[in-house]
Amino acid sequence: MTRACSIARTLEIVGERWALLVVREVALGDRRFAGIREATGAPPAVLSARLRSLVEVGVLETRPYQEHGARTRTEYVLTDSGRALQPVLTALMDWGDQYLSGAAGPPAVTRHRECGEPVHARLLCDAGHTVAQHELRAEPLSLDPRS
Amino acid sequence: MTRACSIARTLEIVGERWALLVVREVALGDRRFAGIREATGAPPAVLSARLRSLVEVGVLETRPYQEHGARTRTEYVLTDSGRALQPVLTALMDWGDQYLSGAAGPPAVTRHRECGEPVHARLLCDAGHTVAQHELRAEPLSLDPRS
Repeated sequence: MTRACSIARTLEIVGERWALLVVREVALGDRRFAGIREATGAPPAVLSARLRSLVEVGVLETRPYQEHGARTRTEYVLTDSGRALQPVLTALMDWGDQYLSGAAGPPAVTRHRECGEPVHARLLCDAGHTVAQHELRAEPLSLDPRS
Repeated sequence: MTRACSIARTLEIVGERWALLVVREVALGDRRFAGIREATGAPPAVLSARLRSLVEVGVLETRPYQEHGARTRTEYVLTDSGRALQPVLTALMDWGDQYLSGAAGPPAVTRHRECGEPVHARLLCDAGHTVAQHELRAEPLSLDPRS
């Protein structure tokens, strides 16, 4: 039996690179199909399917918009659960910055709007301690009776 | 042109659910093919391919082991860059705990070994402030001249 695991459940929904790149792009403010397609490089058919499934699972929602009297089209915005994926995106960005940037250095930086300092995803316990990977203790994950 | 982006680069390497589930499983201490296969549910051919590519990119490394005089086999351990994926795993787990657990509640908890408190992936700026998603400012990502 496989483990009952929130990582596995989450990856069933967003564990495919286009899905998370779409969430990145909408988080950056690109709300329309053409802009998302250009900035992610996703093939149009794949992008359509990902947008649809992200709406179905409640990560994105659609809004109508109209420009210059043209016909009504759809744009995409993050829901609360979509915004809550930000630590996943930031953790992925931190790792790529550190291990995949090469001599050119990181391609971008995310800052705290209030103080201007760079923002990272850190492991913190509820007592406020910074936690290193070797200081984690996973309480034994149960095996999933459904699988 | 698509964005030059550490999220995209990272997802090219680990943006597929089996890859991150393999990293989860090795982080939990399961180092051998049969155990990883059972706990992740990955099809054997897919698992072989993912293990190979995770070794190639330096997330995992192999070690020989021998049991009871049987022939030497391979086990897998995390490298420094593999251990550095922990905030990605924790952020995915946090999101699944919050949005996909249903009435049964989260299937597992990860604690700080020192104090016993649950551990989460939090957005923190380098000045030590906790940062909410709406307080982030992404410095405009450049378009990638390579794509």
